[in-house]
Amino acid sequence: MRISKFAAPEIIFGWGALQQAGECCRRIGANNVFIVSDPGVVEAGWTEQVLVACQDSGLSYELFHHITANPKDYEIEEGVRRYRESECDAVLGIGGGSAMDAAKAIAIVATNGGTIHEFEGADKIKSPLPPLLMVPTTAGSGSEVSQFSVIIDCSRKIKMTIVSKSLVPDIAIIDPQTLVTKNADLTAETGMDVLTHAIEAYVSVAATPLTDVQAQNAISLVAKHLRASTASRTNREAKTAMSMASLQAGLAFSNAILGAVHAMAHALGGYLDMPHGKLNAILLPYVMEYNFLAAPERFMDIASLMGQNVNEMTTAEAARLSVRHVRQLASDIGIPTRLSDIGFTENLVSVMSKAASEDVCLITNPRDIETRDIEMIFRQAL
Amino acid sequence: MRISKFAAPEIIFGWGALQQAGECCRRIGANNVFIVSDPGVVEAGWTEQVLVACQDSGLSYELFHHITANPKDYEIEEGVRRYRESECDAVLGIGGGSAMDAAKAIAIVATNGGTIHEFEGADKIKSPLPPLLMVPTTAGSGSEVSQFSVIIDCSRKIKMTIVSKSLVPDIAIIDPQTLVTKNADLTAETGMDVLTHAIEAYVSVAATPLTDVQAQNAISLVAKHLRASTASRTNREAKTAMSMASLQAGLAFSNAILGAVHAMAHALGGYLDMPHGKLNAILLPYVMEYNFLAAPERFMDIASLMGQNVNEMTTAEAARLSVRHVRQLASDIGIPTRLSDIGFTENLVSVMSKAASEDVCLITNPRDIETRDIEMIFRQAL
Repeated sequence: MRISKFAAPEIIFGWGALQQAGECCRRIGANNVFIVSDPGVVEAGWTEQVLVACQDSGLSYELFHHITANPKDYEIEEGVRRYRESECDAVLGIGGGSAMDAAKAIAIVATNGGTIHEFEGADKIKSPLPPLLMVPTTAGSGSEVSQFSVIIDCSRKIKMTIVSKSLVPDIAIIDPQTLVTKNADLTAETGMDVLTHAIEAYVSVAATPLTDVQAQNAISLVAKHLRASTASRTNREAKTAMSMASLQAGLAFSNAILGAVHAMAHALGGYLDMPHGKLNAILLPYVMEYNFLAAPERFMDIASLMGQNVNEMTTAEAARLSVRHVRQLASDIGIPTRLSDIGFTENLVSVMSKAASEDVCLITNPRDIETRDIEMIFRQAL
Repeated sequence: MRISKFAAPEIIFGWGALQQAGECCRRIGANNVFIVSDPGVVEAGWTEQVLVACQDSGLSYELFHHITANPKDYEIEEGVRRYRESECDAVLGIGGGSAMDAAKAIAIVATNGGTIHEFEGADKIKSPLPPLLMVPTTAGSGSEVSQFSVIIDCSRKIKMTIVSKSLVPDIAIIDPQTLVTKNADLTAETGMDVLTHAIEAYVSVAATPLTDVQAQNAISLVAKHLRASTASRTNREAKTAMSMASLQAGLAFSNAILGAVHAMAHALGGYLDMPHGKLNAILLPYVMEYNFLAAPERFMDIASLMGQNVNEMTTAEAARLSVRHVRQLASDIGIPTRLSDIGFTENLVSVMSKAASEDVCLITNPRDIETRDIEMIFRQAL
């Protein structure tokens, strides 16, 4: 039997939890906090709330909010320069996966030196990071609890996946209230990202009972609440459920790792700078169809977790049903069904499949997968 | 909505994981490890394996193995004296709840000064503890992941419950192999302790989805594997399942806290120095009967998690079934059904009820409970 590992930050969860950001920064030893955010979150007013909380706790801070979707290596370099100039001693990321992944990447280089490219892959980080606190505002990425950071190498046009236990933040503050400013498209895409995290973690070859229980509940919560959360900005029950789903899916995938959906989405995201959640959402059912041979019982569980009665079915029937229900959910909330709907073309298949085949997420995919298999899945999804 | 918190150590789980103890100590900054154990675990050979692992990692250590079941305040004082004399810089507890709770208590006083009595209750610890690593050998206490330590105050003859996030260890190494040296009685009692943790956490007023998923799986695992684990010292599947159950129940109760079973068992354990697991095992069904009014759906879930088909039942019927199945499990593995079987007598009811009514665990009990209610439950269990 293999030996498994599980790591998680301290978690603070609840409507209004944002108010505790300053006190938490103080508790992990911060005096001068480097706050990484993005223009959208600043505009929504959530970043301001964190700044005020920091001030109220007697902390000084430096705000760096020039992060774009799919954060770029040059943004990290700029952030590190600003971190050093302002002599900060802790890093707080507030935003979606982009702001949080950028915050992590800045923290890596701040104490380890070099450039972010040197840390691509697993366990390349040698020196401890500054105290890290994350505040997600999208119920999507799970970066608030994960050991991942994904940054674009602009010269190679690829997404670099950085995996290290050092990237698990010290504290994650999850405040479902931050979701009320998200529009329907972003809610739908990030929600499907949550479902992808949970499903890939659940069928991962590195899944354990500790990750399974988180993934299972995340799948149930998404199936029950993502439609309502997409339909209404102010549905408090749905926002709270989706925040918990994102958190639990994050705990699952951070420790069980992911699979082919993420490998393929990373390739496309790096090359085309497309929204990560939307790519995952489109690719998920195609990869499920490919993978279900490797773990039909797990896919049967997924159908059941999504609320389907599978008692009278064979395992294979129930497993196939899980794919149908993921498709139905995606369709209900307006996710495109094909990559061609978002500008992907046949001529990209070969180079994208090669890029995907080198992604670290493939290692835990339940079914063996070669470059030609990835090409086939890309073509089916065209 | 209230704001909830969740904390857990880094977890390393698997057959043979013990070998990683030295490397883990080094990783959390130890040079000279204070190893707290008990004579039984030393005799079984597990402590020796940890000492060798520490040596292999170039660490020095001091072994302190004079811990008795239900660790006493004077043992902590002696441990602190030895810790200081040997100039250790980290604490490792290996054993059941007693050795681990003692290790935590020694760590508290080592950096906070004073005596252990000053830390009774919630959040009394001010200074950070030395690096803490725990290795459970009983699949029972959950102390390897919890924010609890329970120590007897010998002058007052009571168990002091110390609760603080500082008590969550840095690393928990869970090696199911250590269970093969436990006898059937200890396996049964500690296994029922796991079930008590899971059930009290699941019906706690502080339960959250993060604790629920752990408690649910722990209940299922105990229902499926405790009989087999009690029946055979060498059943690897059962030992692994019970180790996971103990871990997951520990994660649940550390964050959702406990209830009246523990308050009552702490009172008896402090006064009579009786095995904690056995007391919990006897008291659990009586307290479930009392509590079920407050959360019948939760008790219905428990029946279902224990493998019962509750589809055709009313909630109340299913909830009552959960109590019946806990009784059946306890009876199958040879747990006494009444407190009088282990020497508890009517004349103790009043003083024990008063002691229980002051225990911090009562705060999260789902049904309001006064001293006279506790007296009634004690009399029913006589």
